[in-house]
Amino acid sequence: MALWDKMGLLATLLIFGVSLSLASAERPMRRSLVFPMETDNSYVELVPQKDLDMGAFTLCMRVATELAEGNREIILFAYRTLYHDELNVWREADGRYGLFMSGDGVLFHLPELNTFQTHLCLTWDSKLGMAAFHVDGKRSIRKVYKPGHKVQKGGKVILGQDPDSFLKDFQSKQSFIGEITDVNMWDYVLSDAMIEALHVGKRMPRGNVFDWETIELIVNGNVKVITEEL
Amino acid sequence: MALWDKMGLLATLLIFGVSLSLASAERPMRRSLVFPMETDNSYVELVPQKDLDMGAFTLCMRVATELAEGNREIILFAYRTLYHDELNVWREADGRYGLFMSGDGVLFHLPELNTFQTHLCLTWDSKLGMAAFHVDGKRSIRKVYKPGHKVQKGGKVILGQDPDSFLKDFQSKQSFIGEITDVNMWDYVLSDAMIEALHVGKRMPRGNVFDWETIELIVNGNVKVITEEL
Amino acid sequence: MALWDKMGLLATLLIFGVSLSLASAERPMRRSLVFPMETDNSYVELVPQKDLDMGAFTLCMRVATELAEGNREIILFAYRTLYHDELNVWREADGRYGLFMSGDGVLFHLPELNTFQTHLCLTWDSKLGMAAFHVDGKRSIRKVYKPGHKVQKGGKVILGQDPDSFLKDFQSKQSFIGEITDVNMWDYVLSDAMIEALHVGKRMPRGNVFDWETIELIVNGNVKVITEEL
Repeated sequence: MALWDKMGLLATLLIFGVSLSLASAERPMRRSLVFPMETDNSYVELVPQKDLDMGAFTLCMRVATELAEGNREIILFAYRTLYHDELNVWREADGRYGLFMSGDGVLFHLPELNTFQTHLCLTWDSKLGMAAFHVDGKRSIRKVYKPGHKVQKGGKVILGQDPDSFLKDFQSKQSFIGEITDVNMWDYVLSDAMIEALHVGKRMPRGNVFDWETIELIVNGNVKVITEEL
Repeated sequence: MALWDKMGLLATLLIFGVSLSLASAERPMRRSLVFPMETDNSYVELVPQKDLDMGAFTLCMRVATELAEGNREIILFAYRTLYHDELNVWREADGRYGLFMSGDGVLFHLPELNTFQTHLCLTWDSKLGMAAFHVDGKRSIRKVYKPGHKVQKGGKVILGQDPDSFLKDFQSKQSFIGEITDVNMWDYVLSDAMIEALHVGKRMPRGNVFDWETIELIVNGNVKVITEEL
Repeated sequence: MALWDKMGLLATLLIFGVSLSLASAERPMRRSLVFPMETDNSYVELVPQKDLDMGAFTLCMRVATELAEGNREIILFAYRTLYHDELNVWREADGRYGLFMSGDGVLFHLPELNTFQTHLCLTWDSKLGMAAFHVDGKRSIRKVYKPGHKVQKGGKVILGQDPDSFLKDFQSKQSFIGEITDVNMWDYVLSDAMIEALHVGKRMPRGNVFDWETIELIVNGNVKVITEEL
């Protein structure tokens, strides 16, 4: 906990095993993260099941925000190692969506996020460098991005803030406000049909890097963890 | 009736037990309120089944209006006690939707109301202060609003006007024009799935604060009560 | 035919009993009227099954036009007696839709017509004066219009032109360009559910004032009658 203390965090809340107990309930339940306001200190760390040591991935989440009309950047996902932004997903100020892995990114024109939940997935494969977004089960065009590249292990995954250095130097104007749930990651590319099935509620295959049903969440600052019925 | 007389109401019409007799008809019927024009004296009082003494609620209605393009406030629901606006729902002049309980409100970016019926629900829970709208079965983001607050009993619920004091001081530029039906209220939060089911026509659970099928309506001024087949 | 000759019509084509023979075909067929260009002499007269002597009505049609963005009036339906515009339906220059019965009209904000077919219905009842449009099965708000009024018999119904006097004085800038089909009229108000069923293709109840399957059409000027499979 020494690291957390140094960073002057206001509150650290450990939630562990919650969804395991939820899974035994009769109706399926799911945790949802509510980020109620713009801050430079509220975020949630996701503790993965295995190292993010990947030549391919699929990342999915359900996200709702009213920020889209606000004409500013929104960080949607950040995986940072000590010296690099290994894998960041942004909604850019100009409305485009970007994937950035250690440097220049690739940008997509997608529908605006809004106050209702959007199912957003992102796939990338090192072999040909093919990257694509899936919005509510529909795939964007594929773009070529960093063939031969590899995501490096040893970092931390956070939602809600963009760490300009290792888990600090957050800027409130990049923070996420709204609601995120059902964040899952695989170290391979799911087919279009599988992603469409996830969008409409199928819960297989479970993420093998993160599985939202069982993932450990470390909440910092003003983030509410809601448990909702499915 | 002394109060009504003092307020100089043009017309007071008591409709009672109408929907009980309707319920026995073979095809389900439903009352709908048509507010045909801008006035400062037309409104409908809803007589609840129990006191609005609530630490949580779900409020639903089906509403259609052509005012949305008109760039003015529209009162959608008002519950006022002697000294406070206990629970008001507004479409703001800037297009946002607001929930106000005794003071400052919380605002949401939702799709515009229009001439077709929109199913609008609003949920709030005192425990975490989570508030959300549901538009045609889809939930907005949740916002934190007045955790620990309680709605107080002893007031009156009206549709069509905003009472700046206890059931008077109406302003025509805030009045509702259009059609409202299926107004139901519960003193607890319904799940997303239940609200989606209500949107597509399921009639369970019936409101335990108001149940539109049996509620007593007191109509004042120029409001037409239509009975329509479902 | 003396009247037609006086009006100097270029062409008069009698189509009668066509749909009766079509009805015996294996696949259902339907006539569709194509108005290819702006003229002041092209129109189609609809010969009703009974007098338009009505204290209530439902009028439906499927209509497609690219004129809607053109910022001019479009006549959608005209029923004129010797001295009065008994029942006219307009798309106004400002985009609103109007019903006019012998004088001032009532206007609605509806979605724009476009190059795809829109199912448009209009209901009115003399008793309370409730008028409403239905666009692709969705009802607009109800508006109060001429309670106690009655549509008078003894006129003629035409599509494509607005007769400023009895079947003459057409203005090309009010003419219809595009396609109209499935025009049906009833002398009573259909329920919302029945109109939604018509929208998705149910062919019952057949119009008792006009029934598009059997109606006699008298085509004048440049209007093409297409027979299409359903």
